[in-house]
Amino acid sequence: MVKRYLSLISLERAIDLTLTSFEKPDKKISIPVINSVGRVSATPVYAKYSVPEVNLSAMDGFSVRSRDTVGASDQSPVTIVDFTQVNTGNIVPPEFDAVIMIEDTWDKGDCFQIRKSASLWQHIRPAGEDVREGQLVLPEGHRIRPFDIGALATYGIVNVDVREVNIGLIPTGSELVNLGIRPGPGQVVESNTIMAQVFLGEMGANCTRYPIARDDPKTIEESLCRAVEENDLVLISAGSSAGTRDYTAEVIESVGELLFHGVAMKPGKPAMLGKIDDKPVIGLPGYPLAAQTVLREFAGPLLKSWGLPEPLYHTFRVQLSGSLVSDLGFDEFIPVSVGHVGNKFFAIPHSRGSGVQMATVKANGFVHIPAFTEGCDSETEIDAVLTTDPGNIERTILLSGAYDPALDELAHLVRDNGIFMQVRSAGNIGAVLSLRHNSCHAAPLSLPDFSLLPNCREIMQLLPLSDLRFVHIATTSLGIASLGGYSFENLITTRFINRRKGTSARMIFDTILKSRGIDPAQIDGYGHEVETHKAVAEAIRNGFADTGICTSGVAEENGLLFVPLVGEQLELAIRTDLMKEPNISALVSTIRSESFKLSLANKGGYNLSQTGLIRCLSEDFSVKEHHSPESASAPLL
Amino acid sequence: MVKRYLSLISLERAIDLTLTSFEKPDKKISIPVINSVGRVSATPVYAKYSVPEVNLSAMDGFSVRSRDTVGASDQSPVTIVDFTQVNTGNIVPPEFDAVIMIEDTWDKGDCFQIRKSASLWQHIRPAGEDVREGQLVLPEGHRIRPFDIGALATYGIVNVDVREVNIGLIPTGSELVNLGIRPGPGQVVESNTIMAQVFLGEMGANCTRYPIARDDPKTIEESLCRAVEENDLVLISAGSSAGTRDYTAEVIESVGELLFHGVAMKPGKPAMLGKIDDKPVIGLPGYPLAAQTVLREFAGPLLKSWGLPEPLYHTFRVQLSGSLVSDLGFDEFIPVSVGHVGNKFFAIPHSRGSGVQMATVKANGFVHIPAFTEGCDSETEIDAVLTTDPGNIERTILLSGAYDPALDELAHLVRDNGIFMQVRSAGNIGAVLSLRHNSCHAAPLSLPDFSLLPNCREIMQLLPLSDLRFVHIATTSLGIASLGGYSFENLITTRFINRRKGTSARMIFDTILKSRGIDPAQIDGYGHEVETHKAVAEAIRNGFADTGICTSGVAEENGLLFVPLVGEQLELAIRTDLMKEPNISALVSTIRSESFKLSLANKGGYNLSQTGLIRCLSEDFSVKEHHSPESASAPLL
Repeated sequence: MVKRYLSLISLERAIDLTLTSFEKPDKKISIPVINSVGRVSATPVYAKYSVPEVNLSAMDGFSVRSRDTVGASDQSPVTIVDFTQVNTGNIVPPEFDAVIMIEDTWDKGDCFQIRKSASLWQHIRPAGEDVREGQLVLPEGHRIRPFDIGALATYGIVNVDVREVNIGLIPTGSELVNLGIRPGPGQVVESNTIMAQVFLGEMGANCTRYPIARDDPKTIEESLCRAVEENDLVLISAGSSAGTRDYTAEVIESVGELLFHGVAMKPGKPAMLGKIDDKPVIGLPGYPLAAQTVLREFAGPLLKSWGLPEPLYHTFRVQLSGSLVSDLGFDEFIPVSVGHVGNKFFAIPHSRGSGVQMATVKANGFVHIPAFTEGCDSETEIDAVLTTDPGNIERTILLSGAYDPALDELAHLVRDNGIFMQVRSAGNIGAVLSLRHNSCHAAPLSLPDFSLLPNCREIMQLLPLSDLRFVHIATTSLGIASLGGYSFENLITTRFINRRKGTSARMIFDTILKSRGIDPAQIDGYGHEVETHKAVAEAIRNGFADTGICTSGVAEENGLLFVPLVGEQLELAIRTDLMKEPNISALVSTIRSESFKLSLANKGGYNLSQTGLIRCLSEDFSVKEHHSPESASAPLL
Repeated sequence: MVKRYLSLISLERAIDLTLTSFEKPDKKISIPVINSVGRVSATPVYAKYSVPEVNLSAMDGFSVRSRDTVGASDQSPVTIVDFTQVNTGNIVPPEFDAVIMIEDTWDKGDCFQIRKSASLWQHIRPAGEDVREGQLVLPEGHRIRPFDIGALATYGIVNVDVREVNIGLIPTGSELVNLGIRPGPGQVVESNTIMAQVFLGEMGANCTRYPIARDDPKTIEESLCRAVEENDLVLISAGSSAGTRDYTAEVIESVGELLFHGVAMKPGKPAMLGKIDDKPVIGLPGYPLAAQTVLREFAGPLLKSWGLPEPLYHTFRVQLSGSLVSDLGFDEFIPVSVGHVGNKFFAIPHSRGSGVQMATVKANGFVHIPAFTEGCDSETEIDAVLTTDPGNIERTILLSGAYDPALDELAHLVRDNGIFMQVRSAGNIGAVLSLRHNSCHAAPLSLPDFSLLPNCREIMQLLPLSDLRFVHIATTSLGIASLGGYSFENLITTRFINRRKGTSARMIFDTILKSRGIDPAQIDGYGHEVETHKAVAEAIRNGFADTGICTSGVAEENGLLFVPLVGEQLELAIRTDLMKEPNISALVSTIRSESFKLSLANKGGYNLSQTGLIRCLSEDFSVKEHHSPESASAPLL
């Protein structure tokens, strides 16, 4: 057995070591005030002079002595002979103590009349009203906002001292190529230090990316020592796992001290922390989502403790749209999409693969499952930290159910209406549960022809049928997908990949096998079960199987040949009371739009003759076409 | 009468005109992905290739055929002879469909044993797991986040099309000087276009600042026409009021159309909107806070409607820490400091002077009083929009009561503990009301010597005495302030400035006048009343009066000579139950610190012999020294 890590320490302990093992660098740099937004003042800032420096008129009119105006009224106007005309911003001569607006005066040649007395200081901006010379404008540690910059400029402040941290970023790995070069098979673009530069740069850090260090201890050591010398903090990317080519830990130990290697968290387990010349060296795992975790949970808080401003996160209390298993003893971070259903917020978890960057791109937040829990059921409330504008939550539609590529097209089109549609691929059973728990806005179902619905009684009778509308997305086929164009007859001679028991595809497949008298034991791979149509097609595309059952759209999307067996209706089930909700109404309108049908026609594999039809089902599965007044704008098909 | 504005329209109508009168420019620019954070994608972004492109190992170990591993267990290990060694990220040869981790194998020379079967796909990252070639990565209109940039780089995207709006910023006004030049009397630094550039630049707009245009219609017209030609939107600063030198409106009318001039809002009434060559021209008022309102309420939403991301605002439901009058028919925006007292959020309004930029610098948010209300009483709940990190709210201490410059020193020192202390200058009466309503954390009171407290019975008996601790800040004096060093005997021959009835200073002054047999009518300016000590000193400093009553600290701060009349105690009244609260405890420790006493000693005008003493008062005003266990770390003086 190979020992992968020196020892695995808890996230809490790892963060504590990161925050307490180093001196704050306390560096500052003087920058032009106009470039200082978002930066943090490193010294108190004082006004260079008073603003205004002398008493100024706040209006266009005449500066007067207030005592000359006493007693003026409509009945007995007072004539003012001693005055100067002033515009807004003009100096009020010292002998005057009030300004009368031009519209409150009646011109009489070289004097004027007034009908109301002027109070002391009226319409005068006294010297120092805004700020006094030498007055504190910003204390140390103030995060500078756009409108602060206006004030600083007004007060004569041209440059401002801001806190500065210099960070060196070292990518390591012989498989890396620089952005702009097309990676060959097994190569990847070096993107972790780009991501780190942008993330830490947003906090005001000054990042230097060093050249890619090949997998060679000497090269890594040279680069590391140079970066430590030139910076306050060094992040070294990859080489932090325990493979034959992972040298980071040993290099750190050879020139400094390794404080930890391996943290009980996912993603990000290979994280490490070193100390070289009293400076911190953080080891970023190579997998992008693991690197993100280390940037967010270690580098960010360290910079914050050094006085840089943390990114602003919004937190929402959410329920998960399904239960989530996590490893006891591991802190886990999972990208989610949060949406607002009824009076609750729900979160759909995305892929947890630490190499799946699309998960964070699609997500609008993440959840943190603490180490002492084994997961969350769908009843538990947890905090979701948002990574987008919280306003997006109210424009997010959560779908939970049977996945089909048609839903990606739909998501793409509703996005033009400013709506974010997120699909949790959970099969028909997930759709039923979500509809029952009211934890999604709509649930895609993959159903047989409605005349055959009684065959799906087990699933259908679990649905709150009387409360639902079914919007027909498309008719697709269930059939045999393969690269070789195999049909049902070839199943026995090929490697098959199966769907899990309980799914409608599996039930239909088993029914067909039975009707044709085929023994499942004859089929190589009958026991290899995957969760979704998509997983079937991907297994075949990637060469793990030759044949499998999926829908025509999924086969088409994966470039597979397809032999249809039976028709399938892709229906979107929506609670009736949600149909009038603006986002849902926009979603339904999009399904009924010509552009949606056109996009599916271009994809191929769909029958669109009933797309957009809205139906309801009674308890005995009799169908009623529904002429929805809320979508009257789009003609029923 | 001069007509100041063409017509005053409502804020709602003005915003509506701004958002509906122009075509969206729909421009885009291709920029390096690394510079794209915060920008908004202008076209959908697709992956250049699949990631991974081929099946890769997700672990360090051996790639095998899963069917070769069937049946392996501790009792009957299976020997694997057909395999390749792989590190994380290595290509899995097409003949293999699983990876076994190195630590799960027992080396036997040119083969190895396993004690657990490998499942299909185990530890393999199948081709396209993250993204497939041509798959949509970002839809159009996506605000790019730091971690998105990592994904884009991984997927081979070097440049990205982002939405772009070009904005021309024209400062006008002969009184303006450029930043870096010391303004003479009556001159000001041109800071509005700097502020606009930073504010709009944060939204991703590309701003060009044009040279300062002097007050001359021809110069302004030339600059305006050039800016309109070169940009999608033009902001022209100042010249939007109606003084003799305000030409902006007439210039717009001469070359285009004036859509509105004058909006029923404060600050920002002189706002205007023009249309030249079908492009919008927004007139920014010259006063900085008025310019801020127009930037935030007009320019920001216009850019948002053009697809740029709005700044992220947090909103808190707050009560005002006192009533606030506003003009019926005017939408009003007032800078506030929000803090958390008990289980409610309270907001202290700052100065509403539209030239007082320090108000927005000190504030952590603003409130919007809608046009149809005449103001807010302290019971009404309204929304405060935050301009800082919402976490700052929990670190904000609200004080309401008698102002003294010692409080500025205190605020400066507690800021080093990360605490924001905001003082509402509301006099002793304001202190009493805030303590009764529990709408502040602590209330500074300006009191006579405690032995004379029964003389202040009217005020003191309104206090919840049994619930309060009094922390002694300093002993100061009430006396005659002047530039000429006048004493009580000079009051009759000088211009006096008085405090309002009901204030403790006025009561003491009236008592002294009476005891010396002086008729108030003899004193020139006895009827000129101002609210605070500070206002008295400023009136004298600015030449509006010769003499007045204020405290020694305030006189000192304003550079005035001072003749003491009677001692005053500056006490901080705090509810007993708040004394242990961490922020308050830090505040009290700061008052008791040597550095606070040193800073007041340096200012001058304070007796510090009792600073930090904590006392309580019983109903009959008998004093008890309080040995607070919660501040035991600092020795009682």
